[in-house]
Order: sequence, then C-alpha cells, then structure tokens
Amino acid sequence: MGNAGGWSSEALVPVVVNEYSGLTGKGAFRVEAACATGSAAVKAAADAVAAGVADIALAVGVEKMNESPTPIVVEFIGRAGNYFWEFENFGLTFPGYYALYATYYMQKYGVKEEDLCEVAVKNHYYGSLNPKAQFQRRITVEECMKSRYIAWPLKLYDCSPITDGAAAVILASEELATKITDSPVWIEAIGVSTGTANLSKREDYDGLKAARIAAQEAYKRAKLDPENIVKQIDVADVHDCFTIAEIMAYEDLGFAKRGEGVKLIREKQTYVGGLIPVNVDGGLKAKGHPIGATGVSMAVEMTKQLLGKAESGRQVTVKNGRGLAHNVGGTGHYCYVTIYSLSKPKG
Amino acid sequence: MGNAGGWSSEALVPVVVNEYSGLTGKGAFRVEAACATGSAAVKAAADAVAAGVADIALAVGVEKMNESPTPIVVEFIGRAGNYFWEFENFGLTFPGYYALYATYYMQKYGVKEEDLCEVAVKNHYYGSLNPKAQFQRRITVEECMKSRYIAWPLKLYDCSPITDGAAAVILASEELATKITDSPVWIEAIGVSTGTANLSKREDYDGLKAARIAAQEAYKRAKLDPENIVKQIDVADVHDCFTIAEIMAYEDLGFAKRGEGVKLIREKQTYVGGLIPVNVDGGLKAKGHPIGATGVSMAVEMTKQLLGKAESGRQVTVKNGRGLAHNVGGTGHYCYVTIYSLSKPKG
Repeated sequence: MGNAGGWSSEALVPVVVNEYSGLTGKGAFRVEAACATGSAAVKAAADAVAAGVADIALAVGVEKMNESPTPIVVEFIGRAGNYFWEFENFGLTFPGYYALYATYYMQKYGVKEEDLCEVAVKNHYYGSLNPKAQFQRRITVEECMKSRYIAWPLKLYDCSPITDGAAAVILASEELATKITDSPVWIEAIGVSTGTANLSKREDYDGLKAARIAAQEAYKRAKLDPENIVKQIDVADVHDCFTIAEIMAYEDLGFAKRGEGVKLIREKQTYVGGLIPVNVDGGLKAKGHPIGATGVSMAVEMTKQLLGKAESGRQVTVKNGRGLAHNVGGTGHYCYVTIYSLSKPKG
Repeated sequence: MGNAGGWSSEALVPVVVNEYSGLTGKGAFRVEAACATGSAAVKAAADAVAAGVADIALAVGVEKMNESPTPIVVEFIGRAGNYFWEFENFGLTFPGYYALYATYYMQKYGVKEEDLCEVAVKNHYYGSLNPKAQFQRRITVEECMKSRYIAWPLKLYDCSPITDGAAAVILASEELATKITDSPVWIEAIGVSTGTANLSKREDYDGLKAARIAAQEAYKRAKLDPENIVKQIDVADVHDCFTIAEIMAYEDLGFAKRGEGVKLIREKQTYVGGLIPVNVDGGLKAKGHPIGATGVSMAVEMTKQLLGKAESGRQVTVKNGRGLAHNVGGTGHYCYVTIYSLSKPKG
C-alpha cells in the first residue's frame, strides 16, 4: 500500500482497503518514499512475491490531497525536501526546489522558458487523449508562457497539480501468473537509490544522481546496454513533477547526453512515433500527481502500453516489448527505475 | 526503515539515516503498520534479501514521540484504531480500546485487576535488569493497584509509556551472512495478518484474530506444531502495550488455552525458568514503546537471547534455539509473528 499520508484523517488506510476488498486477515503495510511512494509499494509487493512468501500481492497507491487546504499541502510537500535547513530556514517549497534546477540548467545549456513549456504542451496533449487524466485540455506554448510565475522561471503550466487518485496492480508468482492471465507483463528489474538530504551536498544541479544510479542498477539487472537504451525500450513514464524534471530525466536515464535532453522535446522525439515516447499518458503534469498513487499508476500505464491497450492516438508501437517507469521522491531523495517487459526475465 | 512518523517535523527519515550512515545512493523506503511498524520493516528487508535483489539490508526502527505534546501523541495514536467511527465519534483512544478488552476478559474469565498488575510487576522487574529499558524501577502489585486509572480497569502501571527510541538489525543472504558472522540468527518464518478496521466487526473481544492468523501462518511456515508451541521455542517478546494485551497474546499464540492465559502469569510461568519466558527485556511496558522501533527492538532481543548475550538474571536457557516476536498494530489491525532461530530454515 503506497500512501504518503498526512492529508486524510484516516491513519490505517491499508486496513480499510483490506476490509473493503474482502481481504481482512491478509497481511498489509503502508510504504512511503515521498513522491516515489507508489514505486516503493510495487517493489515491496514484487519482493514478497520473488521471495516466495506470497503467491500473489496487491500493490495499491492512493492519495486524497484535496481534503487539506492548499497551503497545508504545499507545506507538507515542502517537508519532503530537507526539512530543518532548506524548508524551515530558507522557506523552500517544491516549485522553489525545481526552480533552482531549472535556473541552473537554463543558464548552463542555453535553454529558454519556451523550451520548458514544450514539455507541458506535450503532456497536456496526451492528457487530452487519456480519459483518466486530471487535465483534458490542450495548451499552447503561448498559453504556458502567459501563465503566472509560481517560482521563476517555473510558471503555473510548468507545475504538476494537486490530485486525488488511486491505482492498483496485482503481482503474482510466475506459476500463478501464467494460470490467471494469458497476457502477463513482467517486472524485469527495479533499480533504487537515494540522494543526500541536503541539496548543498549534491555534486551537480542539472540532474539527479539518485536517478542515474537507479537507472544504471535497473539496466544492469535487466542486462540492457545503458549506452543504447532508447533502442531497447518502447515507452517511458518519467517523473515530470515540473517540466524541467522531465528534461533532466531524459538525461539521467540516458535517453540523451548531458545538456541535450532539451533537443528531444524541441524535436518532438518524445511524442508517439518519436525516438522514445515519454509520458504519453499525460504524465504527472496532466494525468495528475496523487503522490502515493503515481508510481503504481506508472505500472498500470506501462502494462496498458505493452499490451497495446492504450487509447487511440497515444498507443506507442511495441517493438522491444519493454517499458520504463522513473519515479522520484523529494528532489532526488529517493529514486525508483522499474523495467516492465512482455518477456519473462531470465535467471 | 520503520517509522510511524507524525511526531517529528522531519519527513524523510530514511534519507537522513542513509546520509548519516554513509549509505546515500542505496535504496530506502519508509514502512508503516501502526505499532507493528518495526516488524513490517524487518519483513520488508527480509523479503528483499530472500528475493535476491539485495545481499544485505538494514532494518532500522526509529521514533521520537516526545517532540509532540502528550495530548497530540494520544490523539495520533488514537487514530490508529478506527478513525471515523470509533475515534471521531466515540472518542476512543488506546487505553480505552484495551480497557474494552480488559473488561470483557475479566468478566468472562473471572480475572481481577491484581492479575493484570502481575504482568506489570514482571515486566518492570525485567526492565530493571535491562540497561536499555526506559523504566529501571521494580514495582509491586500494591503500587500498581494504587496507581491512577487511565481507563477503567487499566491504571497507569497497566499502560506502556511514550518513548523515544531506535533499534536496527542487519539482514544478509545466506552466503553473505556466513561470511560476515560466525553466529547468525535466522528468520525462520514470518506470519502476517490484518483485522477489521471497525471493532464492531470483530468476532470476539478476548483476543485478536489477526494475531491468531499470523501465529498459525508463522508456525506452518516454520513447520512447528501449533498445539505444542511452548516446547519448541525458548523465549518470546509479545506486544504488551497494555497488561491485558500480554495475557491475550499468551492465548492467541497458543502458549495457553482460551481463558487460561492468566494462569501463566499467576504461576510465574512467563518468568525466566518458567514454561515460556515472555518479555524478559521489560516488554513495551518497561523497556518502552517507541512505535516504529518496537518490532525491530524485538528482533534485537531475540538475537541477544538466542546467542546467550542477554544481561544476567534475564537470560533464558536456550534449548530449542528458537524465539518468537509478536507485534501488533492498532488493536489487532495489523499483526506480525516472527520466528527467529539458531538453525538455518530448511527449504
């Protein structure tokens, strides 16, 4: 059960979900890794199945963020950086954190606010094709540029929204999975990492080291060539909590070289039909970002895409039979990279 | 990382622990299952190792409850029952919950307040022999009986305290464990279960069904005879958040028949040298109950006991080479029963 918690008065969400699902008596616990909570829940369920202690496990992600007033939500999310120094002393909230990255990236690589807006335009476009997306309306670069600043250079349309939402996936052992479905999707590998609590201790500010470590670990476990990753996967969901985060993710995941991630969005290479379609479900930006649900929702989306069940206009071509989910907690405090595959992992 | 959270302003405890431990870059997440949080953390770490995705894992339990004012702590714990009905509408907090069980048990089985106090006397006695215990002072039945009522029939000395504390255990794969230590202690089995959110939906009130399910699952996995469990284990830590809870645990775990748990404490059979020594580290009652740390602390205690490293006067005789930890979240909303063993589990 992935649930960051704190928004709702209900403390025992897994117990309530178990009771409503007729699963009382079955073991459960809550997992939390800030905005990567959902992927941590998928990992905990996958580990239990791989360990042989469960034949079947349910990973649920759920968040109701709209029960609290917006300033409380902003404060609560803000604490998921470095609380004592950066939040309490400097007043950094998440738009502020990612504005630091955006400023650094723009200055270093000659990137403009319009480039960031292109990410929002893409993700709103795909949100309009996804009936489950929070935002169904397409936007233009001009609209994005005219939206108000939240934390310069990030504007309203550069930011993911506050969302209520839930997602669930069922994980089963190889033996059981082949019995209960003709079209299983396999977890080929999961890479996990953490970053320093303090941003001041990071080595650089144009990417997230935890994401690079998690990606390399996932690629190694799945025996993928990290130099050539876009030719081995068909689709990716990345953690676009802010538009700059999607561009950094392109580079941290090896879809582009350092400083060249922006080219992918400029050249529309992350649209369906491009080099590597990214967030063609709308992403956090337009599908929404119900914190504990996001990583689980990525698992649902990778499954839909690999099985060819995504809605018209946003279904990718499945050649390699492999999708990637990249889920970040805090500003790279936690990172999970999960490889989903149509082929059963070897060994 | 087991941390129920909510007391401290720091949201990313696992990230901070990783950074201070020189483990930045390694994967981490927070696990929560109310007062069974620590055991859930041990299980998550054990699953990762058993799944083969980690050779070594660190399960840390930590809670700083004294940073919040006591009424906030009482409210926060109170929410770990059934929030919307029982807490919000009836004002039930945890002493109230367990007072319901105590009242029922006393009426049904002819048990007196003095009997409950005997549990406190035992656990304070062993707390006085454990340098890590929060309470180092022995008490008498008379002192317990004179202490003020918190929720009739439970008095101050029937209740576990508010505690700051932490505990950690390292779990490793069989191959690595045999390299890094000459005296490994093995996790033979873990049984997990949940109960209904609402107390009104429980079948009975003289025990916790989730504990019985978890125990049976653990015994089955460890191939133990549930009818004869006291002859197969040497020591147990059980979840004595209130004195009545320890007596119910005797029965839920099969140390005594229904209604006969009280005999064990009357006859001092759960002291060192008795039929089955229970909470000879002081238990939650006297060692303290730092919520997220408690289950991990039980793992530490079982390890110490099995290796013969407990302090003088509280070391049990190790014959079967097996210890049991019973950790409850809420009022049987979560339950974890973990069997620790000197012998490597078969199969």
